[in-house]
Amino acid sequence: MTSEAITVLGLGNLGRALAETFLRHGHSTTVWNRSAAKASGLAATVAATPAEAVADGDLVVVAVLDNQVAQQVLRGVDMRGRALVNLTSGTPDEARELARWAEDNGAKYLHGAVYAVPQTIGTAESSINYSGSPAVHERWQKQLALLGKVTFLGEDAGRASGYDVAILSGMYGLIGGFLHAAALARAGGIKAAELTPMMLSWLTDMHPALVTFAEEIDNGNYAGGESSLAMNQSGLAMLIRAVETQGVPFAALDELKALVDRQVADGHGEESLARAVESFRGVASQRLAG
Amino acid sequence: MTSEAITVLGLGNLGRALAETFLRHGHSTTVWNRSAAKASGLAATVAATPAEAVADGDLVVVAVLDNQVAQQVLRGVDMRGRALVNLTSGTPDEARELARWAEDNGAKYLHGAVYAVPQTIGTAESSINYSGSPAVHERWQKQLALLGKVTFLGEDAGRASGYDVAILSGMYGLIGGFLHAAALARAGGIKAAELTPMMLSWLTDMHPALVTFAEEIDNGNYAGGESSLAMNQSGLAMLIRAVETQGVPFAALDELKALVDRQVADGHGEESLARAVESFRGVASQRLAG
Repeated sequence: MTSEAITVLGLGNLGRALAETFLRHGHSTTVWNRSAAKASGLAATVAATPAEAVADGDLVVVAVLDNQVAQQVLRGVDMRGRALVNLTSGTPDEARELARWAEDNGAKYLHGAVYAVPQTIGTAESSINYSGSPAVHERWQKQLALLGKVTFLGEDAGRASGYDVAILSGMYGLIGGFLHAAALARAGGIKAAELTPMMLSWLTDMHPALVTFAEEIDNGNYAGGESSLAMNQSGLAMLIRAVETQGVPFAALDELKALVDRQVADGHGEESLARAVESFRGVASQRLAG
Repeated sequence: MTSEAITVLGLGNLGRALAETFLRHGHSTTVWNRSAAKASGLAATVAATPAEAVADGDLVVVAVLDNQVAQQVLRGVDMRGRALVNLTSGTPDEARELARWAEDNGAKYLHGAVYAVPQTIGTAESSINYSGSPAVHERWQKQLALLGKVTFLGEDAGRASGYDVAILSGMYGLIGGFLHAAALARAGGIKAAELTPMMLSWLTDMHPALVTFAEEIDNGNYAGGESSLAMNQSGLAMLIRAVETQGVPFAALDELKALVDRQVADGHGEESLARAVESFRGVASQRLAG
């Protein structure tokens, strides 16, 4: 592979792993971090300012705490002709705003959402969703592929973050449920390590049902319903009673039951649990076109 | 296999699947249901009352709406010499109460928590956790194994329900997170069917981290922490900001963040996210012995 001039802004765990990966593959890499000490041990050119670092690289990769920091770091920097790839976590709107800013400043913008811990960057276990400039995706795909599996989700710079926010909510649902399960187990004298394999196996067995739920949600047709709203309404009522008896209440269960209750009250008790998605605020009016 | 005399009380989807399985394997099966019409098409003896049905069977299997209904159905019935297996979902305390009642009335009690949809009862996809009388588990294990994989969790009749309540909470965490993710996706113009495979793959990749969390929770040692409380605190803050911007708030995220915040405020920001379990009410005082 040709050696390319690449700049990495931000040397947290992620940024450092990115710079190490580019260096390992022989790219001429310039780094900048607010505290230069973070660059110690890296065989990279260390720039004194973001502007100096950006002047050095054709591809500029940003990995900082959040998009507010990204904006501060880039403010006033000459971005003309640069490919700006931002791997900072944030909201879809923040990504779109940065894309507009980049365009106004003569750069092309691609946003990436990273599915990896820093330790797996540069391995097959890492996967990154991108959206934004197709030109940047095309021109730099070989270099981006060094970091992890590349998936391009289209031109809307906010789309990768849109997926990301949804995936993170799913992830925190799983984590919250797991932590509460572990708390309940402890209250019942059961070790988390005894419970966890059994629970994870049951959760994995549920994945096909979630795939079916997704189809029902996209089609707006909830008539199937092996797992009906009414059935889950009584299941949740029992569970809420049980966790309160065990002294470990969890408001997430009450919230989910309220979503279910609303659909049952609207006469949909025999329909699929997936219909509870319609109870979320801001959803009913937003049905996608078929 | 010898033909045994088995009684099934309750012919909802689960009870009917149980009776069909016993009949298919040649057991002499008596059924009772509040509305006898539910027995139509079953090659079983249909009893007019629970007492008549129990008189017919050495093994009495109960699958009704909840344990209050189970108590009503069994009230006044002569249970002497019977093995009572209750597959009704409920709390650990309810199971223990029924076990005491059974003992007081000359029966032995085993409680079961079913991991199967009714359609898979009697197949390798079904799995049932039992706890309570070891004698019932031993005497009837061949017949119970017809229904699904048998796991015996010990003599405490409440233990299978204790596991069940915890597993259900984990399951509803996953479902709540999934539904919210689908709602967010729709708000962002993304189809649930596009999002779901990517999300499920990421959730599966997280399972090893949850196994590590379980060990940390049992040991009360959170010093590891690839995924620190502080990191997740900012991740959750970003996510909450994003979902509010997208108009799809989800209180479960605020609740989880509050659990995390409390540990960070207590000075544990660099420790593992698993430590958030200590923030649940009713948990701190209940550490298990090593």
